[in-house]
Amino acid sequence: MSHNSFGHLFRVTTFGESHGPAIGCVVDGCPPLIPLTEADIQGDLDRRRPGQSRFTTQRQEPDQVRIVSGVFARESDGVQITTGTPIGLMIDNVDQRSKDYSEIKDKYRPGHADFTYDVKYGIRDYRGGGRSSARETAMRVAAGAIARKVVPGLVVRGALVQMGPHKIDRANWDWEEVGRNPFFCPDAKAAAFFEGYLDGVRKSGSSTGAVLEIVAEGVPVGLGAPIYGKLDAEIAAALMSINAVKGVEIGDGFDAAALSGEENADEMRAGNDGRPLFLSNHAGGILGGISTGQPIVARFAVKPTSSILATRATVTRSGGEAEMFTKGRHDPCVGIRAVPVGEAMVACVLADHFLRHRAQVGVVEPRWPFQE
Amino acid sequence: MSHNSFGHLFRVTTFGESHGPAIGCVVDGCPPLIPLTEADIQGDLDRRRPGQSRFTTQRQEPDQVRIVSGVFARESDGVQITTGTPIGLMIDNVDQRSKDYSEIKDKYRPGHADFTYDVKYGIRDYRGGGRSSARETAMRVAAGAIARKVVPGLVVRGALVQMGPHKIDRANWDWEEVGRNPFFCPDAKAAAFFEGYLDGVRKSGSSTGAVLEIVAEGVPVGLGAPIYGKLDAEIAAALMSINAVKGVEIGDGFDAAALSGEENADEMRAGNDGRPLFLSNHAGGILGGISTGQPIVARFAVKPTSSILATRATVTRSGGEAEMFTKGRHDPCVGIRAVPVGEAMVACVLADHFLRHRAQVGVVEPRWPFQE
Amino acid sequence: MSHNSFGHLFRVTTFGESHGPAIGCVVDGCPPLIPLTEADIQGDLDRRRPGQSRFTTQRQEPDQVRIVSGVFARESDGVQITTGTPIGLMIDNVDQRSKDYSEIKDKYRPGHADFTYDVKYGIRDYRGGGRSSARETAMRVAAGAIARKVVPGLVVRGALVQMGPHKIDRANWDWEEVGRNPFFCPDAKAAAFFEGYLDGVRKSGSSTGAVLEIVAEGVPVGLGAPIYGKLDAEIAAALMSINAVKGVEIGDGFDAAALSGEENADEMRAGNDGRPLFLSNHAGGILGGISTGQPIVARFAVKPTSSILATRATVTRSGGEAEMFTKGRHDPCVGIRAVPVGEAMVACVLADHFLRHRAQVGVVEPRWPFQE
Amino acid sequence: MSHNSFGHLFRVTTFGESHGPAIGCVVDGCPPLIPLTEADIQGDLDRRRPGQSRFTTQRQEPDQVRIVSGVFARESDGVQITTGTPIGLMIDNVDQRSKDYSEIKDKYRPGHADFTYDVKYGIRDYRGGGRSSARETAMRVAAGAIARKVVPGLVVRGALVQMGPHKIDRANWDWEEVGRNPFFCPDAKAAAFFEGYLDGVRKSGSSTGAVLEIVAEGVPVGLGAPIYGKLDAEIAAALMSINAVKGVEIGDGFDAAALSGEENADEMRAGNDGRPLFLSNHAGGILGGISTGQPIVARFAVKPTSSILATRATVTRSGGEAEMFTKGRHDPCVGIRAVPVGEAMVACVLADHFLRHRAQVGVVEPRWPFQE
Repeated sequence: MSHNSFGHLFRVTTFGESHGPAIGCVVDGCPPLIPLTEADIQGDLDRRRPGQSRFTTQRQEPDQVRIVSGVFARESDGVQITTGTPIGLMIDNVDQRSKDYSEIKDKYRPGHADFTYDVKYGIRDYRGGGRSSARETAMRVAAGAIARKVVPGLVVRGALVQMGPHKIDRANWDWEEVGRNPFFCPDAKAAAFFEGYLDGVRKSGSSTGAVLEIVAEGVPVGLGAPIYGKLDAEIAAALMSINAVKGVEIGDGFDAAALSGEENADEMRAGNDGRPLFLSNHAGGILGGISTGQPIVARFAVKPTSSILATRATVTRSGGEAEMFTKGRHDPCVGIRAVPVGEAMVACVLADHFLRHRAQVGVVEPRWPFQE
Repeated sequence: MSHNSFGHLFRVTTFGESHGPAIGCVVDGCPPLIPLTEADIQGDLDRRRPGQSRFTTQRQEPDQVRIVSGVFARESDGVQITTGTPIGLMIDNVDQRSKDYSEIKDKYRPGHADFTYDVKYGIRDYRGGGRSSARETAMRVAAGAIARKVVPGLVVRGALVQMGPHKIDRANWDWEEVGRNPFFCPDAKAAAFFEGYLDGVRKSGSSTGAVLEIVAEGVPVGLGAPIYGKLDAEIAAALMSINAVKGVEIGDGFDAAALSGEENADEMRAGNDGRPLFLSNHAGGILGGISTGQPIVARFAVKPTSSILATRATVTRSGGEAEMFTKGRHDPCVGIRAVPVGEAMVACVLADHFLRHRAQVGVVEPRWPFQE
Repeated sequence: MSHNSFGHLFRVTTFGESHGPAIGCVVDGCPPLIPLTEADIQGDLDRRRPGQSRFTTQRQEPDQVRIVSGVFARESDGVQITTGTPIGLMIDNVDQRSKDYSEIKDKYRPGHADFTYDVKYGIRDYRGGGRSSARETAMRVAAGAIARKVVPGLVVRGALVQMGPHKIDRANWDWEEVGRNPFFCPDAKAAAFFEGYLDGVRKSGSSTGAVLEIVAEGVPVGLGAPIYGKLDAEIAAALMSINAVKGVEIGDGFDAAALSGEENADEMRAGNDGRPLFLSNHAGGILGGISTGQPIVARFAVKPTSSILATRATVTRSGGEAEMFTKGRHDPCVGIRAVPVGEAMVACVLADHFLRHRAQVGVVEPRWPFQE
Repeated sequence: MSHNSFGHLFRVTTFGESHGPAIGCVVDGCPPLIPLTEADIQGDLDRRRPGQSRFTTQRQEPDQVRIVSGVFARESDGVQITTGTPIGLMIDNVDQRSKDYSEIKDKYRPGHADFTYDVKYGIRDYRGGGRSSARETAMRVAAGAIARKVVPGLVVRGALVQMGPHKIDRANWDWEEVGRNPFFCPDAKAAAFFEGYLDGVRKSGSSTGAVLEIVAEGVPVGLGAPIYGKLDAEIAAALMSINAVKGVEIGDGFDAAALSGEENADEMRAGNDGRPLFLSNHAGGILGGISTGQPIVARFAVKPTSSILATRATVTRSGGEAEMFTKGRHDPCVGIRAVPVGEAMVACVLADHFLRHRAQVGVVEPRWPFQE
């Protein structure tokens, strides 16, 4: 309900602006007794961190996370574990380059939240986008690193599957490849192409969009809370809440509209492991808002960065018309760094639903087949 | 938070199953003093009602709504108005055709929620889908009819823009046309084509999907509650929570991924009405999760009905394998009737954000241009 | 958050007014597989029902509850059980005696919510108190009957411990006695006295207040969600939300203020049953907002009914001054019937925390003593 | 819903433990454009700060608050104002005296939350009470300082009205006196007595309880959200959530039980200021859960500190029996410092309801008298 919180039982609240002293996060409702150190979180943060290749913003942020509450060293072995109390996380803002804001403080950058924040609140922190900056997503990634530990056996991975108009070849999909290129791209051949493509975009001062795919494996059957707390509905909200996202799909997504009922409905056979064997996964692992036990597959579209090296028409705070030209350090394809953010959001939704399921039903295990 | 509720301040809770005695809804938090009669709600319900053409299920439900609380006749003129207390709505289930359920009570219909509900809860009401039936969406439409009255000047309309693989021609868009064909299609030529196309699908016992578009006009600037209560995030959840929906987009949606920054960011000029004049609407009326004052444009994809006249492989409750064949009354394109449902969901989200905005900011009017 | 809902995971939403067609309730989040029939609920409703003795209002309401959703007959034995979907409950209003409201529709009854509802909302249903009528508490009792079944082994009982200025003698406490007199009084001697006392109050057209005590036994150790979801904080809200309640205490309550630390802190010894043996229960079963496993003891004070046969000074809708005299059927001690309502509220809070605890911690059983 | 958050629209989340590096708070939903500096908050924090007299714990904490987000200097005059984004507050823990915890880490202090936290979570931070320490209340006070600024004209003050068994003489009530003695006592004569009384308690190594009263003036008519969001219900939860509180009353509270209807119901006459003139305030400013415009009066009882210099029987983590003796810096009457905490909690509830009322009703002003 709160503007800056999400999740019901695994609840994440973030605060902080791009150019304030720090950004922070509170994770409330986390189960106790889970081993957790800063290193567990730092790995994911480093994957999202800017400045790691020439294809992301050159802002230099170490994004060093500190856990300020909610953990304690276990007596028996000294391992630091969660205590069930709120986990406070802080990251100091380091690279707040002093800058002349006179160009942008009275003008609204097209495609940015400048205009809407100002009209809504009557004031905005114009330094680096303030609260609307993608810098906030660092805290999502931090929370997601904790969420991953809540659901036993859960593996959430993401990949870039389209850059600009160029889709990868899914036949080349190799999860190992994702960590080998700066694009989180699972198709080595496409990654090679993207390098040249994005260099062109970058050098021309332009930007491009992307489509990302998140796959969650090891999800127990039965997670999801129909009708309005459907697992897919909450994944949709979680992904759409990421900066610059304009679309979300589950399973076949928009392509499902073009299918026939025969093509779309996943048939079932009896598996050997207490789960049914689905013969396909058009549903993306969710039926009726509840997980089927198949991998959950979600995709989301990220628009091109609006900060580009081109003059654009806009208006000023006082109602005048103006042209503006956004200088500064930006991502030519902001979608790239959205991969770990998308993973984190899906992990958080799953952790939340894992707890919600356990609350209502008491057990988290297949009830099928029923031996009555 | 509750499974069967949505909205924070304009809060909708539904209950009831397809073949129980009744379905119902509680709308809590509605402002007082709004004129409201059953007729105001019935109009939208009639648009969703099944059995109105050969292209929707032949279940015969009058869907007659009763307001059981939350309204009172104003002393001065006898007009029935909301009192600020919870509005209870009830619709009796009338056409609960008695039926032999022996075929489906132990088998899981592929593509339906049968399996997931059973595994989650250990029991399910198998009559007509029980709680997972699209019948529940009648109460969304009823709530939406109230929501429309909460935001002054709001107009929310929807249309079918794709059936199966066939898209309409947006050049032919005519809102008047939507009410003239059984498909809610704004393109007369496409509607004529869909008639033959869907007859073919229906007669072959198959089904097809659809894409629907919702457009909300008259939305004040400033609605939306960043970061996690973004207007687009909550619209995405609301639409994805509708039965059979697999994808949601805002503005250019997935197409935005293929655009350059120059193409995508909407430029602004000074309008004459205290709102800026945007030169395009790629954003779909939302920036940074907050409404811009432009029309809000959302699309969603509905998968083909899984109930088809074809034999499908499945499993039984006790773990065996089986074939099944779904008889009964069904929609060859369940997406058609999702149009008023989508409108209702968007209206409810907007009503909720209208109240949330008024809470935090106190005024609902453009603050721009700033005359300081 | 919603005005007419409470609970987080076991969530109760009520609707309806005193003189509308019906009152209703939705219980969402209830675990599945719990046997539940209307008879299970009716018993508690009958204990609250008016008109059962000359000491409660003579309104004749059968308060016959109907379950309209959320249950299904189990295949194996035909027993009706909960399905995990929302449980809809309805009670038709029967004794809506037609009446002349001209006396009260423009005047505000002192001590009632007439003035505040009207100023807040700009309208009120003045028939029998409308939404602010104690009739709403019937639905709390109905929800409470379900809540009692959620926590295994839970027994929640209530008793009247003070009427007007007269306290019972706790040495005479006998739970069996509670069902034998019309006052829910556990002290037979006090009950005999109250009969004459309350007859005097009733015949003089006056009213009197009461203090009620609720005791919950069989509460697992560990329920409660510090810091702001403390078990005692939520019990306090739940009891204070009952009509006419002006005070709530846990354990020694206000008397604790007069104690020394030595007197107040309950010492512990090792019990034989995996629970500690507390040597006293000044805490009322809660420490740090979390249940200790001892009985939870809460008391609440109910003010005297404001509807009395005496002329009172008040104001009118249009700002004039007036005298008014409340006729009609009322309780000389409205606190009496608050006993089953208080029990229900405590049961609902405990059911909610039982689910919340199970969500976060996974197990509901003593972890003590720790064998590491 | 979250364990460590309260409020719906003005939402406060706290984190941190007694002996961790820092404690923090996020205030979300605060209206924009409110002037706010650290000095505005520090004043209230200083009133709660320990170590200011010999009657409170000698822990030396400067409790210096830092605002890390949610404010920005207004262009026109440089005044720092809220931006509508989450306000992050941090206080570093300074006086974390290194200490030998071997005495308490395996034993449960009677009357403390040690046992319940450990059984619930399976681990606890035993340093200074960890999360259950009253140190957390510093963040409540900080949030309350912001809440006070949300409701125009609101004044919330508190006072100690009873220490141990000794009540003040209300005839001597002087708000000015509250700031002149170390007890927040409005009765100078009682304060003089308490000095000697509490010295005796302190020197004997014992402790004593207290009753505090909070009075909120300038509350608009109409705040409160019936039925379950009643203003008094939420005040009860807010006050009961403070450490060591065992009882809460509104208006006449428990004394109301002993009154007759004639004595209790507050009569009304027409006032001159658009508010009615109530002839008394037994109701404590709330009827039907909604504010009447009279001062809101709430009292709460604080139990004596359980940390005393006396040997007490208890149990150990591994199930053995033990005696323990709590050394360390403690308050002989922990209730004293609860005064600013109680004020803060009431202020936060009022700020929240102010926003909730504005959301639903749109205006915050008397609608009475009605000129129709």
